[in-house]
Amino acid sequence: MNKETLIQVHEKVKPYVHRTPVLTSELINDMCGSKIFFKCENFQKMGAFKMRGAANAILSLSEEERQRGVVTHSSGNFAQAVSLAAQKLDVKAYIVMPENAPQVKKNGVKTYEGEIIECESTPQAREATANRIKEEKGAAFLHPSNQDEVIYGNSTAAIELLEEFPELDIIITPIGGGGLIAGTALAAHHFSKNCKVIGGEPMEADDAYRSLISGKIETNDSFHTVADGLRTHLGDRNFPIIQKYIEKIIRVEEEEIVNAMRLIWERLKIIIEPSSAVPFAALLKEKNEFKNKNVGIIISGGNVDLKNLPF
Amino acid sequence: MNKETLIQVHEKVKPYVHRTPVLTSELINDMCGSKIFFKCENFQKMGAFKMRGAANAILSLSEEERQRGVVTHSSGNFAQAVSLAAQKLDVKAYIVMPENAPQVKKNGVKTYEGEIIECESTPQAREATANRIKEEKGAAFLHPSNQDEVIYGNSTAAIELLEEFPELDIIITPIGGGGLIAGTALAAHHFSKNCKVIGGEPMEADDAYRSLISGKIETNDSFHTVADGLRTHLGDRNFPIIQKYIEKIIRVEEEEIVNAMRLIWERLKIIIEPSSAVPFAALLKEKNEFKNKNVGIIISGGNVDLKNLPF
Repeated sequence: MNKETLIQVHEKVKPYVHRTPVLTSELINDMCGSKIFFKCENFQKMGAFKMRGAANAILSLSEEERQRGVVTHSSGNFAQAVSLAAQKLDVKAYIVMPENAPQVKKNGVKTYEGEIIECESTPQAREATANRIKEEKGAAFLHPSNQDEVIYGNSTAAIELLEEFPELDIIITPIGGGGLIAGTALAAHHFSKNCKVIGGEPMEADDAYRSLISGKIETNDSFHTVADGLRTHLGDRNFPIIQKYIEKIIRVEEEEIVNAMRLIWERLKIIIEPSSAVPFAALLKEKNEFKNKNVGIIISGGNVDLKNLPF
Repeated sequence: MNKETLIQVHEKVKPYVHRTPVLTSELINDMCGSKIFFKCENFQKMGAFKMRGAANAILSLSEEERQRGVVTHSSGNFAQAVSLAAQKLDVKAYIVMPENAPQVKKNGVKTYEGEIIECESTPQAREATANRIKEEKGAAFLHPSNQDEVIYGNSTAAIELLEEFPELDIIITPIGGGGLIAGTALAAHHFSKNCKVIGGEPMEADDAYRSLISGKIETNDSFHTVADGLRTHLGDRNFPIIQKYIEKIIRVEEEEIVNAMRLIWERLKIIIEPSSAVPFAALLKEKNEFKNKNVGIIISGGNVDLKNLPF
């Protein structure tokens, strides 16, 4: 994969995604002693950066593959992203979801005409059901984070950010499945002189932090974090990129995530999901390291249940 | 007042305000059958359009007047706007507030170094206290909505919107004290070919609606509306402008305001205060009238207590 590949990916997905705005706040900058540029993927179509990876993955299929449809198992933003990207490209989307998934998530998929296939609420059942659809329909399987086309699609958020602010010293993203930070790391490597990439991760699901230390993919025994989008693990496609290119991972406590989220709601006046507050929480935690630096933060999404806020 | 005056006002306030972004949503457009352009004054400095009027009012004072300071009585956004504009212009701001005003509002003023003068919680006490400060300090009194310089300053939000989208058929704003809609009406009159201006007003505080019918300024006996920024009356400076230039006022129920607010939070992913949802509620209520039209909506502000949401 070289720079030219990413340029082509960006051109390819442009018609299907928003070029999201970058917001700043004098008050937040004064508070932190750094200049922060928030790339607002919460304003992306369907409300999250996942649209970029999903669009690129479907666009990368052959005409024949597209006719057989796509399948994924996700109950989160990727389910909606695949549904919407597929709808726009006139491709059938099969979304495997646990039968007890919240109605609001099912409705999100239905809005974009994704076909929901219910299964038991275990990882095994989800995989088995997705495999069955793959067999029966010949549908192409799309992984939420551990697939090259998805990672390359995700990189376009940071490419846009660096196009507008080439003087960034650091970009911070949340780290869950690893697809966003891997894409961001590739973008920084190819589209900046010396911009570092740092991950923010909940202490309660710090598998990526531990994976970097041990040198192999670690998992979590539990996911007691408010950052629901980050309750997942790295994969074999994104882990090597993360190992190679990212500077480090800063871990944050639950209270720090909620405080950072509230600050962004109050000061930037934008709605972000808990996972998206993790990079800003990381910056606040290690303020001194970012002093007088130009810092990009990727606000990954804004899909949050207004009836169930953490504050 | 002519077009040249407003151009000069805009040039004058530009260094002190943000040029706020304009957001759109395909989903909302599809739902309404019109193309809606949301001018996001919730992203304005201190979180509301009031910054524009306050900045222009202070900039319009002589050097001598500025040295004696400014005074206003407000417990809402205008108090913060005057404090911040005065701080930026190195002018002393005296803010008269009822002693029982919420601490969060007092803190907002203190953040921007406004000096709070407490008084009893009656309109009489507020006016008497402001008058006392005027006498004692020689401070210039600034009215939140009923003063020419404030109205002209407010007009700059619609001027920017029309610069970017000259093909707008209609602009809708909330109507409370009347300062925003009067400024918007002047902007539409001078900066568009044929853009109409419509007001959205809570049924529970429909003094402006009744004033247009009776031809004189009416008041409300009560203000049982969630739209806290609209619990006020028209004044003798803005009412004639409203009479002359605005198309009509659409009144909305409380439930319609809350539903419109929730839709904007969920779909646009931005934080707006209840008053700012009133124009969108008006559009939703009379959808057919706006069908296939290009509609600008001024999102007046985003200062809301996250611990006390109406949904």
